[in-house]
Amino acid sequence: MAANSEVLSNKQVILKNYVEGFPKETDMLVKASSISLKVEEGSNAILVKNLYLSCDPYMRARMSFNQDPDFSSFTPGSPIEGFGVAKVVDSGHPEFKKGDLVWGTTGWEEYSLIKNPQGLFKIHHTDVPLSYYTGILGMPGMTAWAGFYEICAPKKGEYIYVSAASGAVGQLVGQFAKLMGCYVVGSAGSREKVWLIPMQSQLVELLKNKFGFDDAFNYKEENDLDAALKRCFPEGIDIYFEHVGGKMLDAVLLNMRLHGRIAACGMISQYNLSQPEGVHNLMNVVYKRIRMEGFVVFDYFPQYSRFLDAVLPYIREGKVVYVEDVADGLENAPAALVGLFSGRNVGKQLVVVSRE
Amino acid sequence: MAANSEVLSNKQVILKNYVEGFPKETDMLVKASSISLKVEEGSNAILVKNLYLSCDPYMRARMSFNQDPDFSSFTPGSPIEGFGVAKVVDSGHPEFKKGDLVWGTTGWEEYSLIKNPQGLFKIHHTDVPLSYYTGILGMPGMTAWAGFYEICAPKKGEYIYVSAASGAVGQLVGQFAKLMGCYVVGSAGSREKVWLIPMQSQLVELLKNKFGFDDAFNYKEENDLDAALKRCFPEGIDIYFEHVGGKMLDAVLLNMRLHGRIAACGMISQYNLSQPEGVHNLMNVVYKRIRMEGFVVFDYFPQYSRFLDAVLPYIREGKVVYVEDVADGLENAPAALVGLFSGRNVGKQLVVVSRE
Repeated sequence: MAANSEVLSNKQVILKNYVEGFPKETDMLVKASSISLKVEEGSNAILVKNLYLSCDPYMRARMSFNQDPDFSSFTPGSPIEGFGVAKVVDSGHPEFKKGDLVWGTTGWEEYSLIKNPQGLFKIHHTDVPLSYYTGILGMPGMTAWAGFYEICAPKKGEYIYVSAASGAVGQLVGQFAKLMGCYVVGSAGSREKVWLIPMQSQLVELLKNKFGFDDAFNYKEENDLDAALKRCFPEGIDIYFEHVGGKMLDAVLLNMRLHGRIAACGMISQYNLSQPEGVHNLMNVVYKRIRMEGFVVFDYFPQYSRFLDAVLPYIREGKVVYVEDVADGLENAPAALVGLFSGRNVGKQLVVVSRE
Repeated sequence: MAANSEVLSNKQVILKNYVEGFPKETDMLVKASSISLKVEEGSNAILVKNLYLSCDPYMRARMSFNQDPDFSSFTPGSPIEGFGVAKVVDSGHPEFKKGDLVWGTTGWEEYSLIKNPQGLFKIHHTDVPLSYYTGILGMPGMTAWAGFYEICAPKKGEYIYVSAASGAVGQLVGQFAKLMGCYVVGSAGSREKVWLIPMQSQLVELLKNKFGFDDAFNYKEENDLDAALKRCFPEGIDIYFEHVGGKMLDAVLLNMRLHGRIAACGMISQYNLSQPEGVHNLMNVVYKRIRMEGFVVFDYFPQYSRFLDAVLPYIREGKVVYVEDVADGLENAPAALVGLFSGRNVGKQLVVVSRE
């Protein structure tokens, strides 16, 4: 090996080129680079060992060329980035020291040099699984919490529909709504041709029996989304937690109740289309007095400690359960990320880089 | 004549059949019926002489078959209904007496028997033109007031775009916004091939010099709505007062600023289409954190006196001006109503049935 014993091999997930349409595993390349485990003298940077990486739908926007300040493009030829849990190996920053556990934006690689660590959150509670900080206790958890309590303005007894309900955010929104005394229905598209038992029963099992939803359906098995929603919501929908967009949103608009609310968190069905689908039923917004409101979780990060105070007890007391879909190793990271867009994941999709 | 001298001829505007697509003058028929000017003994009804009738876009929904409780269908073979100003001729209701002036829902005819007059508003201020109670002091005025102050949550200095800006609601929203210190741009489609001077200058003249908008454009003269909005709003739009829908909404979404608001009042471009246009740019709602909220003015009617207290002084002090497009006589009422949907009106479209 080289004379400098601190230089290690560093496996990375590289974006080859900007992506158009559905991302494929082959849009990424897993290869080894090398890295020094020491932060340069006088730098404010920290060097971390990545433990868990989060696969999130918003990452699709960063795989294409764009100039959005919140969702800037990844750099082709460099490792992709995302939220993750990491351990500090070396620090030039006064607020971080070796051994600290953190979550926040990091690289899809074994070790990352983080030049501006100010945006990272330190992890103080380790009686819960560390991987939870990629999900229920991290960005998706904050998304569910802010979206449900701040944007949806929910009331006990209301009818709530959650799309992408088995994902990181959806499973939590549904459970928060049940804790509030709402009637909750979720939909998702479950893994096809992977398990042999009927798809519908798997999904209903998970959403109803594990998460406590009142009803559930697999949208891939419904020819008519409007009919599916009318079956599940004969009284209509008060709150829709929007993850899907396009045809799903159009069907939901037909089934909203007066003064309904739509928390627009994402529209995953549209991310890989060159031209987004048209939504035709927006007149319902007018005459049903619907409030449709978009939000981005970053705006709520300053409230993180308030969020932890609310959600940690739910986990510890078993009031909220949480399902993860774990891919093992960076080699499997591209497939895990790509699977989000075909609905392959059941539960929060994450990648284990290293368990410690 | 008949022995009963109180039975008079009563000219009416009859809906022949439910309408599909663009309404035509020939969908309506003006013909004479007869009416007794006495209310039956023991009835709570009132009998009114109609003075001014209001042509409003929402009436299109009532011309088709529908089961919406707020916008129920007109009855083919019977007079259409709408907001109007009327004078009480006879009353069986304790709260109304002969000679009272009222505004509210009445028939498109010379005289109407109103069986449930509770929903009518009595007119107490007659130092302003009576016709104003079909517009600035009636339903459209309340719409502009509630939509702008309650739904838009405006702040001084914000960039405001109003479509259908020369109409009853749009001209008021723009002026309210100017009074608040906002930058206001309006668009409308002005009468084509009616006046001979260039269309663009007419409209710009009206919106800028009469109503005080900062800028204006005629959407019928723009090939590229996105480009027109970028020209008028290089910094983007904070508030959009939505009257149009479809392609206009799609172009606006591309030009909204972070945390923008869309007050969804109507979508007139869509009312005559068998299948509404698709709106493709809704992902902007998510990442720009846009709130799009529909509202219906009926919900604000209980605040009518508060509204009058705010708006009457604006009129008396000349802080708000108001332009009407007046059709004379019930014979011209069908053309006036139909003209709304091709953008023929400049100013609030109304019909004079009788001036006293």
